[in-house]
Amino acid sequence: MDELVRLQSVAASPDGLTATAARLETLLKARGFKTSLMAAQGAPPVVFGSYNSPGAKRTVVFYAHYDGQPVTSEQWNSDPFVPVMRDGAKDVDWKNAKPPFDPEWHFFGRAAADDKNSITAFLAGFDALKAIGHKPSINIKVFWEGEEGRSSPHLAEITRSHKDELCADLWLIGDAPVHQSRAPTLYFGARGNLGLEATVYGLRRALHDGHYGNWVPNPAVMAAELIAQLRDSEGRILIPGFGDDVRPLTAEEKAAIARLPSMENDLRHEFGIGRSEGNEELTASTMRPALNIKGLRSGQVGAEAAGAIPVDAIMAMGFRLVPGQTPQGVRAKVETFLKSKGWTVVTDAPDTAARLVHPRIIRLAWRDAYPALRSDMTSPAARGVIAAANAAAGKPVTILPMMGASVHLYLFDDIMKVPVIGLPISNHDNSQHAANENLRLRNLWDAVEVYAGMMSRLNW
Amino acid sequence: MDELVRLQSVAASPDGLTATAARLETLLKARGFKTSLMAAQGAPPVVFGSYNSPGAKRTVVFYAHYDGQPVTSEQWNSDPFVPVMRDGAKDVDWKNAKPPFDPEWHFFGRAAADDKNSITAFLAGFDALKAIGHKPSINIKVFWEGEEGRSSPHLAEITRSHKDELCADLWLIGDAPVHQSRAPTLYFGARGNLGLEATVYGLRRALHDGHYGNWVPNPAVMAAELIAQLRDSEGRILIPGFGDDVRPLTAEEKAAIARLPSMENDLRHEFGIGRSEGNEELTASTMRPALNIKGLRSGQVGAEAAGAIPVDAIMAMGFRLVPGQTPQGVRAKVETFLKSKGWTVVTDAPDTAARLVHPRIIRLAWRDAYPALRSDMTSPAARGVIAAANAAAGKPVTILPMMGASVHLYLFDDIMKVPVIGLPISNHDNSQHAANENLRLRNLWDAVEVYAGMMSRLNW
Repeated sequence: MDELVRLQSVAASPDGLTATAARLETLLKARGFKTSLMAAQGAPPVVFGSYNSPGAKRTVVFYAHYDGQPVTSEQWNSDPFVPVMRDGAKDVDWKNAKPPFDPEWHFFGRAAADDKNSITAFLAGFDALKAIGHKPSINIKVFWEGEEGRSSPHLAEITRSHKDELCADLWLIGDAPVHQSRAPTLYFGARGNLGLEATVYGLRRALHDGHYGNWVPNPAVMAAELIAQLRDSEGRILIPGFGDDVRPLTAEEKAAIARLPSMENDLRHEFGIGRSEGNEELTASTMRPALNIKGLRSGQVGAEAAGAIPVDAIMAMGFRLVPGQTPQGVRAKVETFLKSKGWTVVTDAPDTAARLVHPRIIRLAWRDAYPALRSDMTSPAARGVIAAANAAAGKPVTILPMMGASVHLYLFDDIMKVPVIGLPISNHDNSQHAANENLRLRNLWDAVEVYAGMMSRLNW
Repeated sequence: MDELVRLQSVAASPDGLTATAARLETLLKARGFKTSLMAAQGAPPVVFGSYNSPGAKRTVVFYAHYDGQPVTSEQWNSDPFVPVMRDGAKDVDWKNAKPPFDPEWHFFGRAAADDKNSITAFLAGFDALKAIGHKPSINIKVFWEGEEGRSSPHLAEITRSHKDELCADLWLIGDAPVHQSRAPTLYFGARGNLGLEATVYGLRRALHDGHYGNWVPNPAVMAAELIAQLRDSEGRILIPGFGDDVRPLTAEEKAAIARLPSMENDLRHEFGIGRSEGNEELTASTMRPALNIKGLRSGQVGAEAAGAIPVDAIMAMGFRLVPGQTPQGVRAKVETFLKSKGWTVVTDAPDTAARLVHPRIIRLAWRDAYPALRSDMTSPAARGVIAAANAAAGKPVTILPMMGASVHLYLFDDIMKVPVIGLPISNHDNSQHAANENLRLRNLWDAVEVYAGMMSRLNW
């Protein structure tokens, strides 16, 4: 893990990505895997490996990604690529410390939690089995990609063009944090994604708000009004019929959510918030589609705020989709709603002629579109995974029918037509995608057990 | 005018302000004025001058300001302090051009329209009277301040401490643009001002919107919802009872507005907008209180937009007040409204303990507070000014009961207890407070006539 973090495998460092892929291939080869690098033009390679276990009837692909998120080094408390172990705020000289280590120590470094921990746990689990002389119960394939942080633009292409080599009975996705209760977790789906940047327009130049402020349209107000029409502060999407296509939860899925421990009071305290949106518990709320406002920009604030009407307002939004919804369908519902409110929808900045004719112009830039997936929790493969995880953990693991965040699960489902199940590792408070990313030691140990359990007990 | 613009009298250039004040004092002395510089700690001096006309029974103070707005030179087409005359987009060598000049030429330079044109017109009007041997009909005082661009923080102090020297029967405020019809204009009031920066809070750190986006409060949404509750996109303020204190327009004021030429279609075309807020004409709309959103900031947009819930949302707002309203009263109405919507109003950033107890916290920073003024349009002084302006212009001038923008008229009314009337000069499209500030030549000539008319015809 220490070694892997030091290899700077981030998009800004192509050499680091190449070096990491080469190192991972070596690590697999040393364990008896047949390996190859699956390439696509302009993409870091996918590290592929396969290991056949004589007598095994099932084959399972273990997915992870070896790239990390970009870093803004000055926001980190230490070099993101020089791992540090900490006990609370205190650094620990763990390489010279005598075991047992404290399971509450945290290991800091870019990609420590997202997602080199999955690769580390896989390798450690494999080695542990070998050390006690256990033979894998399944044939094992690994698929470790290197551009997840860039939304995996070549993932479909690589998967499709290597469909035969990737042939398997199940994909296990080693990514994402476990439930906030910190217990070992399986997830059976993930929400889809749909990004939108919307711009509304006022006058081309900022005008004095005293002379013109009740008469010249104010785009900041138009944006605010629009957001309040799209979504309220309790998390409800207000577009009529927005949820019509949503596939309801099954009885098993509802029961799984009802079984989750209540974390809400703890989380409100941990986060320092006096309320949460809506009146559902956290996981239940993420079973619905969501609209998040990620950013707003209009005019100036602070010392630069002028007595002027802003020229435009930009809204960065993100939809999270659930099964039954498609990006195309959501897009159509949003655009129909905007038109019903008097908006003219465009894709380029309007010229003066267009502004004169259309009183309310909104420019939409859609992006990052992919659907959700919820796998069948009652399939034989699913039952097999749950049983193996429970046995490895020594207790029933936490079952999430779907993760709130978006992962490209649909893609493996769509191309490979086999069950796709998530095997998360990281602590929920891992600061992934931000500075000071970290992995709680106990989470790594739990993961080694779960990975070893999958490799030695899985059978259906 | 050329010389005055070259003296860089902006807040960033204290030497330019000092040099301008000294130069103006010299110009007044040369015309027989008794002069002094009225100082306050930390303020550029007010240039004061007085000229007694034997036999005159009334004394009039002419207000203007010799400082200009700050400049962002790279946004200008030429050096803001090296004046350029232009015929459309074409430069004109006006110093070597033979009269008559084209009245549609524009003179570009910082403070050319705001407000050195008033000083220039005053001096030119005074000289013109002298040239034809006319004696002023009034005793004249000038009061030219140098920190209007910084909201005149020392204006009340200087006015109060020189109350005796400033004693007069009328103040004429030489500032602001004329009506959009470009006709010579008088205004009898100005709206007051009340700035507000409001901040609402989410979580202290940005959280993944996929995992937490239907549950952790989104401050961008809270801000949008609040703005939509405060004001709609037709310019209506929605706070219950907000207009209760508003003093209605008198019959004379209503009649003056009804007489204004309809400019709205021309303006919509000039501005390139397909609609205006509400269904009133422009000037009528500025007789009401206004709430303008000057800026919005939350999270990130564009390439920097992350899949995250923003930590806060900042709203820069500006109220324009009308007579009957006080800044204290408006502030109380806003805070009462916020409390009725469940907000806890604070003045400092909340700590974690406060965030845990109060589900919706809003931090308010109020600033720039002063009331409106509408002078009596039927007072003897007002009738005298209208008559003199009409005679000078050779036709009825445009009468505005109140300007939409805010000027410190209330202060002279409050301290000096005499009528205060506005004598604007600039073209409405002068780009004041922005790059490429300019003065239409015809507006300057009109102003010289009106100033000379005031000095030679005013009597009541």
